[in-house]
Amino acid sequence: MKKALIALAVLGLTGGAAVAQSSVTLFGVLDADVKYVKTGSLTLKKLDSSGLNTSRFGVRGTEDLGGGLKAGFWLESEVNTDTGVAGAASGGAFWARRTTVSLSGDFGEVRLGRNKSVSRLHVEDFDPSAFTGLGNVGVLYSNLGSGNGTSFGRADNQVSYSLPGNLGGFYGAVDVSAGEGVGTNKGIAARAGYKAGPLHVSGAYATTSNAADTDKFKLASIGAAYDFGVIRPAFSYTENKYQARKQEILTVSATAPLGQGQLWGSYTSAKTSGEVGFATVGTPKLLALGYIYNLSKRTALYTTVAELKNDGTTRFILGGSPATVAGAAGLGAKSTGFDVGIRHSF
Amino acid sequence: MKKALIALAVLGLTGGAAVAQSSVTLFGVLDADVKYVKTGSLTLKKLDSSGLNTSRFGVRGTEDLGGGLKAGFWLESEVNTDTGVAGAASGGAFWARRTTVSLSGDFGEVRLGRNKSVSRLHVEDFDPSAFTGLGNVGVLYSNLGSGNGTSFGRADNQVSYSLPGNLGGFYGAVDVSAGEGVGTNKGIAARAGYKAGPLHVSGAYATTSNAADTDKFKLASIGAAYDFGVIRPAFSYTENKYQARKQEILTVSATAPLGQGQLWGSYTSAKTSGEVGFATVGTPKLLALGYIYNLSKRTALYTTVAELKNDGTTRFILGGSPATVAGAAGLGAKSTGFDVGIRHSF
Amino acid sequence: MKKALIALAVLGLTGGAAVAQSSVTLFGVLDADVKYVKTGSLTLKKLDSSGLNTSRFGVRGTEDLGGGLKAGFWLESEVNTDTGVAGAASGGAFWARRTTVSLSGDFGEVRLGRNKSVSRLHVEDFDPSAFTGLGNVGVLYSNLGSGNGTSFGRADNQVSYSLPGNLGGFYGAVDVSAGEGVGTNKGIAARAGYKAGPLHVSGAYATTSNAADTDKFKLASIGAAYDFGVIRPAFSYTENKYQARKQEILTVSATAPLGQGQLWGSYTSAKTSGEVGFATVGTPKLLALGYIYNLSKRTALYTTVAELKNDGTTRFILGGSPATVAGAAGLGAKSTGFDVGIRHSF
Repeated sequence: MKKALIALAVLGLTGGAAVAQSSVTLFGVLDADVKYVKTGSLTLKKLDSSGLNTSRFGVRGTEDLGGGLKAGFWLESEVNTDTGVAGAASGGAFWARRTTVSLSGDFGEVRLGRNKSVSRLHVEDFDPSAFTGLGNVGVLYSNLGSGNGTSFGRADNQVSYSLPGNLGGFYGAVDVSAGEGVGTNKGIAARAGYKAGPLHVSGAYATTSNAADTDKFKLASIGAAYDFGVIRPAFSYTENKYQARKQEILTVSATAPLGQGQLWGSYTSAKTSGEVGFATVGTPKLLALGYIYNLSKRTALYTTVAELKNDGTTRFILGGSPATVAGAAGLGAKSTGFDVGIRHSF
Repeated sequence: MKKALIALAVLGLTGGAAVAQSSVTLFGVLDADVKYVKTGSLTLKKLDSSGLNTSRFGVRGTEDLGGGLKAGFWLESEVNTDTGVAGAASGGAFWARRTTVSLSGDFGEVRLGRNKSVSRLHVEDFDPSAFTGLGNVGVLYSNLGSGNGTSFGRADNQVSYSLPGNLGGFYGAVDVSAGEGVGTNKGIAARAGYKAGPLHVSGAYATTSNAADTDKFKLASIGAAYDFGVIRPAFSYTENKYQARKQEILTVSATAPLGQGQLWGSYTSAKTSGEVGFATVGTPKLLALGYIYNLSKRTALYTTVAELKNDGTTRFILGGSPATVAGAAGLGAKSTGFDVGIRHSF
Repeated sequence: MKKALIALAVLGLTGGAAVAQSSVTLFGVLDADVKYVKTGSLTLKKLDSSGLNTSRFGVRGTEDLGGGLKAGFWLESEVNTDTGVAGAASGGAFWARRTTVSLSGDFGEVRLGRNKSVSRLHVEDFDPSAFTGLGNVGVLYSNLGSGNGTSFGRADNQVSYSLPGNLGGFYGAVDVSAGEGVGTNKGIAARAGYKAGPLHVSGAYATTSNAADTDKFKLASIGAAYDFGVIRPAFSYTENKYQARKQEILTVSATAPLGQGQLWGSYTSAKTSGEVGFATVGTPKLLALGYIYNLSKRTALYTTVAELKNDGTTRFILGGSPATVAGAAGLGAKSTGFDVGIRHSF
């Protein structure tokens, strides 16, 4: 949903031809919703941030170096629309969403810095909510007690490589994150896919270390979507493993144009099994439905309903819900939510 | 004093007509003063920030959606010119001054996010210093031990509504802030006024809850100003109440064009009464006088003198003063200050 | 290396003539390197930030006030490319690198705010690495246990004055930082020099107080460089003093154009003497060599090698190294490093 909306002319440093090809862009999203959430018997009405897309503020740019070579940079900071807090929700650092410098050309692209792992990008592609808001499929993803969700989010100290964009629909990328003495910072992720015409298929694999750097959390995932025009069904299947623990997550979803917007729905089942006594054993399920009404390409009104049913010993909750399922009383608790919001990007 | 100084052309997403009407603006203020302050026997010389206007950095924009409808966003962060600290002085969050997304049209404007309450905007309109610097009338406003000054500042989780601007000088706005489990975050404020030609009258009412959400802090205020051209006298009267405590604040002020600038002065008396033993019972008085010399519309030099006299058990101090009036020795202490500064906005 | 790369037209507030002379500029640097460092027996491979120039994000601008008078502002924030952290590495504040408002004219320039001291600017001019990255000569500079390195970095509450730029190559500046109750914040620095044609000579003097404001840390430094075209040799000699402690630092360096870039090298010896038992007595030496390959004026690839040899009781380490020289085992330890990186400025 992020778009380059403002191109500032670059003056004085490069010739006339390069001016048209180099740019610095200020961009962002401000998204707020009025949300009603209920978990077990506890309810909460709130003004929340990022119901449809994560609110953010960023600066990015590219420079044409000639001969097909380009340099680029990207600074992106999360914004909590309801409180004005910057950065905190995605890792504490101000520019925690992304801080990279890159070089790209015929060989592909190399990026250095803090960034989202390619395995996370893979899974988001097959979730209509892209891991955001009440319908966020990500709430069911567990790190299985490994102490590490890096393969499922963003990582510091990352070097990533992406194949060039001219491979007839085929694409691929790999990233490596240096631990620098912290086991849970150490990770590697790879992704390959094909996207052309109505078809999109993709697979990803990632591992990250636990704190002691003795065992690895492993993620393997496949996804596919086909756009029939009137409807775009999609699915993804992901296996997370850590020691004797395993999580099998299936998401089926569909997006359909409706009036001046899109209707979408997703269903996710996340079966966790393995070690006795591990707190999230069971098969919780998430059902989410939403409608996005586009006032323009940049501005939309939206509404979402979602229901998350816990199972066995699982205690997952919807994003933004009051956290009542932590205790024994939370066994089997249900978490539901409804919101109405506005998203404006610049 | 904030002005939209830079309009960046919006490219590529909207048609030619909309380009002229949509914009993203980078704006800010850098204000620093050399200040001498004395409270009781303690003196301090310092380089300070925000002597005339609060230093800030912001990004805002609007998008024309057609049919009179507009979307807008606003991100604004305080800057301490003397230390480089961002955000902290107005609530800790980076964008604590304002983080909103809004929709406006013939119906008025709805804003969601963190913002200044309309009751605070009302009072600032009748203080020549607009609650900033040595002459800041706000230092005499007490929350009366309610633990809450939200009705007098900015609030998280706010939904606000403003009447449209075409009501022949009449205006009005209301805002509601969701507590989301924190009593002192819960508030409501309303304001109505008339501003046309030389006359401006306005009234405001606000309530906020205490921490336990058992009692309310209440503010009621009226203000008026008349611009005779050679001088603009103004006054405001505000009553703050909490349980058996009460504060009656009267401000009379005047602003007059003088040479390439404005001369201004204000006198405030704040009578606090009520519960025995409450630490701010008495009638402290603040006298402030200043001159602003405009080098341009964006840049000004200024000077301010102010004197705050405590009374009874009150222990108020001028902004930036050494805090000596906290102890018993501070009873009746006087706080005085003088500054010379520069304010540059962009 | 910082360059004004984007000039945004200022609209609406000033006449046509002023438009061409007033500007607001968004600028920054994103610099990341892959670094291998070894101290004693400990090694570390890492993705690091700021190997050549410190990564940063800033906004600055000037306004032409007529009659040769100009107002200006500058906001600059450090960025850690590897983690997305903003501000922290240079003092905690978001805009810690620089936050100033200034007025300049025929009389010179007065700046108020947080800024780098002129004594630090003097020393950086004669270090090819400008106190950044593996070759940073600054790692050998000690505050001699005074608790204060302010004279060697940035200071809050600073008022600075610079002579005008039209003195036939002569320049000079002085800055004063108000302690405001904190001894280590209190400082004064002065600098004078001559830079014309191939010759550059400069001298600086600075003092800062210790925490109790009872003793002063003093720095005196001279530097010179001559650009022969094929090579630019430079040297600086600095004496730091605090109580009975003394540090004599000699840096000799050279920069030479080579192909589409520059080759540079520096050698620094820092003899510390004085009080028995002080932890940094000895003569550590730093040797650094680097090559910068310019892809454009804005983008460069670079590589650096450096070796720091401790001596006596000194325990200095190269920037980014694992910190093993703190204990007794670190006596005489050697710290070495190698990096390859990319710097992109905007």
